[in-house]
Amino acid sequence: MPILLQVDFPYAGPWGEDMAQAMRGLAESIAQEPGLLWKIWTENRDSGEAGGIYLFTDRADAERYLAMHRARLLGFGVPEVHAKLFEVNAPLSAIDRAPLAGLQ
Amino acid sequence: MPILLQVDFPYAGPWGEDMAQAMRGLAESIAQEPGLLWKIWTENRDSGEAGGIYLFTDRADAERYLAMHRARLLGFGVPEVHAKLFEVNAPLSAIDRAPLAGLQ
Repeated sequence: MPILLQVDFPYAGPWGEDMAQAMRGLAESIAQEPGLLWKIWTENRDSGEAGGIYLFTDRADAERYLAMHRARLLGFGVPEVHAKLFEVNAPLSAIDRAPLAGLQ
Repeated sequence: MPILLQVDFPYAGPWGEDMAQAMRGLAESIAQEPGLLWKIWTENRDSGEAGGIYLFTDRADAERYLAMHRARLLGFGVPEVHAKLFEVNAPLSAIDRAPLAGLQ
């Protein structure tokens, strides 16, 4: 059963293409994390927030990643990290065209 | 530029297959919402929360949907709705295998 991890935190930039250049190495390292299926990187310069939506193959990998990533973000100077773990309701998600094919 | 909408709220069930049966009609109606690319339905019976991660084609559709959905949830008796809108950082998401092919 895949586990969805939702993370957001206060963030002051860089944004967009500048963010992509600054964090390319981090994204490449995240791609190697055990159990990671994918991450969508999120940003909102109006509210001053960024984060990510992750899908992991199982809860243990998601929880281990979250503990590591929370400590890393706090080390970067992020003042607080909001995170929630959820199971995915596969039948309802399928009705709404969620990109989960082959994962259940 | 696609817009990601992140929603969660206190929820007391039903869960899993029972949730899927109870909310099938709602999911079918959400599939028809203007601008919706997809929704992943989320649930966590341990924390007593549910919600969804949505991808919309543009901000106006996401904001209009959120206003309607928030009112609908409050009408269902949900005490509070947490929602955030984000832009997607496409280059970083691509590095992390995000299922966004063809959307940017």
